Amino acid sequence: MIIVFKKDAAKQDIEHVKNRLEQFGFKTSMSETQDRTILGAIGDERILREKPLFAMPGVEKVVPISKPYKLVSSDFKKTETVIDIKGVKIGGGNVVVMAGPCSVENREMLMYLAERTRKAGAKILRGGAFKPRTSPYVFQGLGEEGLKYLREAADANGMLVITELMDPRDMDLICEYTDIIQIGARNMQNFRLLKDLGTVRKPVMLKRGLSATMKELLMAAEYVAAGGNDEIILCERGIRTFETETRNTLDLSAIPVLKSMSHLPVVADPSHGTGRRDCILPMSQAAVAAGADGLMVEVHNCPEEAFSDGDQSILPDDFDVLMKRLNIIAETIGRKLITE
Amino acid sequence: MIIVFKKDAAKQDIEHVKNRLEQFGFKTSMSETQDRTILGAIGDERILREKPLFAMPGVEKVVPISKPYKLVSSDFKKTETVIDIKGVKIGGGNVVVMAGPCSVENREMLMYLAERTRKAGAKILRGGAFKPRTSPYVFQGLGEEGLKYLREAADANGMLVITELMDPRDMDLICEYTDIIQIGARNMQNFRLLKDLGTVRKPVMLKRGLSATMKELLMAAEYVAAGGNDEIILCERGIRTFETETRNTLDLSAIPVLKSMSHLPVVADPSHGTGRRDCILPMSQAAVAAGADGLMVEVHNCPEEAFSDGDQSILPDDFDVLMKRLNIIAETIGRKLITE
Amino acid sequence: MIIVFKKDAAKQDIEHVKNRLEQFGFKTSMSETQDRTILGAIGDERILREKPLFAMPGVEKVVPISKPYKLVSSDFKKTETVIDIKGVKIGGGNVVVMAGPCSVENREMLMYLAERTRKAGAKILRGGAFKPRTSPYVFQGLGEEGLKYLREAADANGMLVITELMDPRDMDLICEYTDIIQIGARNMQNFRLLKDLGTVRKPVMLKRGLSATMKELLMAAEYVAAGGNDEIILCERGIRTFETETRNTLDLSAIPVLKSMSHLPVVADPSHGTGRRDCILPMSQAAVAAGADGLMVEVHNCPEEAFSDGDQSILPDDFDVLMKRLNIIAETIGRKLITE
Amino acid sequence: MIIVFKKDAAKQDIEHVKNRLEQFGFKTSMSETQDRTILGAIGDERILREKPLFAMPGVEKVVPISKPYKLVSSDFKKTETVIDIKGVKIGGGNVVVMAGPCSVENREMLMYLAERTRKAGAKILRGGAFKPRTSPYVFQGLGEEGLKYLREAADANGMLVITELMDPRDMDLICEYTDIIQIGARNMQNFRLLKDLGTVRKPVMLKRGLSATMKELLMAAEYVAAGGNDEIILCERGIRTFETETRNTLDLSAIPVLKSMSHLPVVADPSHGTGRRDCILPMSQAAVAAGADGLMVEVHNCPEEAFSDGDQSILPDDFDVLMKRLNIIAETIGRKLITE
Repeated sequence: MIIVFKKDAAKQDIEHVKNRLEQFGFKTSMSETQDRTILGAIGDERILREKPLFAMPGVEKVVPISKPYKLVSSDFKKTETVIDIKGVKIGGGNVVVMAGPCSVENREMLMYLAERTRKAGAKILRGGAFKPRTSPYVFQGLGEEGLKYLREAADANGMLVITELMDPRDMDLICEYTDIIQIGARNMQNFRLLKDLGTVRKPVMLKRGLSATMKELLMAAEYVAAGGNDEIILCERGIRTFETETRNTLDLSAIPVLKSMSHLPVVADPSHGTGRRDCILPMSQAAVAAGADGLMVEVHNCPEEAFSDGDQSILPDDFDVLMKRLNIIAETIGRKLITE
Repeated sequence: MIIVFKKDAAKQDIEHVKNRLEQFGFKTSMSETQDRTILGAIGDERILREKPLFAMPGVEKVVPISKPYKLVSSDFKKTETVIDIKGVKIGGGNVVVMAGPCSVENREMLMYLAERTRKAGAKILRGGAFKPRTSPYVFQGLGEEGLKYLREAADANGMLVITELMDPRDMDLICEYTDIIQIGARNMQNFRLLKDLGTVRKPVMLKRGLSATMKELLMAAEYVAAGGNDEIILCERGIRTFETETRNTLDLSAIPVLKSMSHLPVVADPSHGTGRRDCILPMSQAAVAAGADGLMVEVHNCPEEAFSDGDQSILPDDFDVLMKRLNIIAETIGRKLITE
Repeated sequence: MIIVFKKDAAKQDIEHVKNRLEQFGFKTSMSETQDRTILGAIGDERILREKPLFAMPGVEKVVPISKPYKLVSSDFKKTETVIDIKGVKIGGGNVVVMAGPCSVENREMLMYLAERTRKAGAKILRGGAFKPRTSPYVFQGLGEEGLKYLREAADANGMLVITELMDPRDMDLICEYTDIIQIGARNMQNFRLLKDLGTVRKPVMLKRGLSATMKELLMAAEYVAAGGNDEIILCERGIRTFETETRNTLDLSAIPVLKSMSHLPVVADPSHGTGRRDCILPMSQAAVAAGADGLMVEVHNCPEEAFSDGDQSILPDDFDVLMKRLNIIAETIGRKLITE
Repeated sequence: MIIVFKKDAAKQDIEHVKNRLEQFGFKTSMSETQDRTILGAIGDERILREKPLFAMPGVEKVVPISKPYKLVSSDFKKTETVIDIKGVKIGGGNVVVMAGPCSVENREMLMYLAERTRKAGAKILRGGAFKPRTSPYVFQGLGEEGLKYLREAADANGMLVITELMDPRDMDLICEYTDIIQIGARNMQNFRLLKDLGTVRKPVMLKRGLSATMKELLMAAEYVAAGGNDEIILCERGIRTFETETRNTLDLSAIPVLKSMSHLPVVADPSHGTGRRDCILPMSQAAVAAGADGLMVEVHNCPEEAFSDGDQSILPDDFDVLMKRLNIIAETIGRKLITE
């Protein structure tokens, strides 16, 4: 940690900060530049984050050196994490596609979509049974009935299930049916929920919050890892910006950057990330070309009848085209689309 | 709802949309401009939000006319809501100040701060017992012990208590001790929690999410109101922007705008909104000058010892100065600072 | 244009707006929903943008129907614009790469980089002679000397030149040496400069401003087109968001979206868009996979010696690898990388 | 400057960076933390900003210590700058109001508005003769005719003139008529124009760009100051965020923060900052309560007839009310509204 003092900081104020740091067990070293004093402090910065150094008189700037996250950082673990779920490997050069409808609407549509997407190469079936909706007046999901359909459709086609957990009280129910627990963007900083996930024996896919920095996404993952669960998949799903042509701005640079900061796999969700059907193919191709370890794509056989997010679903035929392209793009950059 | 079609939309596509709208019970009217067709549809738009019109062929743009929120809108109720809690009235020209430490750290500090802030005119004691922290490695709050201290310090000084609820499983516990339930920015779109709040008999203060539009804040309030609880206070506490000199950007224009959109009282939190002690007095004055119905201010007797957010707390002496100024500013714009 | 009135708008206020619109030559039609009046107005909305309708009593919302840009819209011209510069075709399924150093530093480096990038397949040589720099104390470019080196290096290798125009007073000088005039993000809304560009017989590459919406980028292009110059290339180069790990957030969804809004070619600049060398290959691949008509990439033989932006330049060897990959990716999605 | 190395940085890479820094005349000192090496470097950082340290192998992070701006910083000059223009003092505890229409439309309206706003206490007449407009198809200003009217109306009422310079080629013309040169948000980083302003003998009001950080605003001011002109007024006029209820988000915390970073006066423009008439009074009051040295307010006698920005103008009667309130608010916080 580096403490930069104000130009006219008083000697005793500087001494006071130095003493406090030494009380906390830090080794300090002082430098004088032509116009100000700088104090370096070496020790466990996680203790210091507790202490409002910036509030002390004379202090102009506090620059942390160590990262606030540890277990999920690429410093902590040099090799990429590969999560093996019933033989499907996520991470380590593999590209895995999760596909399905936004909401589970009924058994028939789900059986059909599972079959179609599996045939095209998807390994994981997505679908919401509990839906976070901005309006209290619209469809909120089928609940447990939806979970049952998901499990049935996935099993019938040799797929895994991923579905969203919104509330800690649904943990056991969700775990009974799903292979991967999805945490939505709006819950990325639901810290109590993150703690609970640390104690569960299921992989977690953590979606980046609409206004979350990459560092904050890693801090959220650190909560889960600190609780003992290190099977975490990071998901870029668009951040909020001033642009309104797309629902969110899908930040694909998060893929290479997160992969340099962390050993965890990183996937992208172009459906929520753009909110526009005409962007899903281009941005899915782009995500894989940027090195994503996987994709989450909404597919619906009749988008205009969808109970939610039909605007951002592609048709099964488009999905077929997409998967063929992804196969070549992945190979071009030395990665492998997993379809079998 | 207005549907604008693409310039070259096919006749049958336009007819298809028109028929669908009429099936949903809408009255439609078609207009031709020089280069495109426009369809007006009158009916209950909440039904239509379910249906992905934008996904239908030929559609270029869908413009909703009615507001997605109803109970909390100024159309629904013309007069400002005044929430009366044990005689303290929030809304309706009153300015009420909530003050106290970020976290409850121990009994002594809280007793001292309650007394000092009450003497200066604060009517409500704030303090966190359960803290949302970005790092799993730092102080997470005293829990129930903190709630007890809050209640005791408030009662001893004739104040109300406001404290944050983070998890639905703490609802009963929090309700036992607090007068107002605070919902933090990170939980503003925790829809299950919002539903639970609809069934509780306690006023709720809902903080605007870091990336939430004003409309989304009102939609969150609508969840609570739709559940049956109409005692809701809105709180502007800073949004996330590209600026890094302040922790967030306190959007004071939200005060007049929310008050024109809704009948609910609107308060501001300059401590979290700026994250800088030197901004708290100026921005507190500004918030009241902009017409805020109240303020939430962090006060600490020794910010550098604070367990959390000491960087954004002011000293009790500064708080005394602030309250004197607020009294005059409120009066200047025809409002009244409530101190007795 | 749709005018939505307030719930309690007075009859005479509604009549007043209707009369004004009819004075401006609009055909109007009134609808009553259950709780408010809506007025549709058909005519030339560009006139109306002059008139502050929102300022009139009783008006709640004004919804424009027609687009504020015309000449550059895909409604105006259905086929993609292809710009042919000395035989190099930009647009229409071609992918063209512009490469070179951020600043022209000296003749030798430029000759070397032109040769290397041309050999790898770049058709256009980039390099700044006049540099927009945030600090007045750093290298501001070689000026005309730099332009001469650019021309010489490009001619020696059979390449085109693209370089930035910062000031209208340099127009003639820049036009003497360059094949494409680059307008930087900070000048995207320098409206006087845009007007001047309308009268010039050179293609223009217009970079999206850091906080410009896609619509505003098209409005800026409309200025140039309205002046008579329709050879315009749009360039996505990153927008400003809250994220700080990357210098800007490269918004690749702008590629498919701009191409649906406009007939103009769209290229991407991953160097400025991310500011990180480790993002340039992934994001260049992603841009082409998303359908970009070209790329602008900074290449430097010794980034740590670069006078500017060395942090975001790749080495010539990396560029060789990139071009091979782009060739396959372009082909996979039915496009063609132009290298000869 | 602090260089943080990667955890596994090679010895020779660290040595290489150290040697380079010493070649540039820096004094260096090395520290070892438990898991990485940190290098402190003391010297003229403005040289270093030229050199892409981040591009060197082994480097994880580069933390500048000194500020990139100097002449405009509060370190350079401890006392607040007071700009005296024909006896009107801006800065130093004074609050000065600039008022008038968005565009100069004709002589009569301007004479009327000058008289009305002067009577209410405005000291400076604003009005655009050259207008930056996002559409090429709308009113672009009266040009020199507008400048003449401005001068005449200001002289007749004992006011100063402020008007916008958009293009360096208009410099002499603008200087002939105006007392303060306004630089609009879109030109804040027009570096060539900023350089020209450094050589002019007129005060400059520099508006913050829509996506400019406070630091960048100060860097822009540094350009002007480095050229020799130190009469600079900073203006907060709203930044671009995701919120759409207001045209921009007026960042009032910029007032106290800029005043702590710099010795220059800071004013606010609530008209452009919000784009809504109903926000102008509240936000003007708030700006003064936050410590602004002045305001720029659009006033129009018939907003619905305004050639531009009528939506964000207030009526002369509202302006009268506002000025009375500002007088008390300024006094409450120990400042003085200048009306005589």
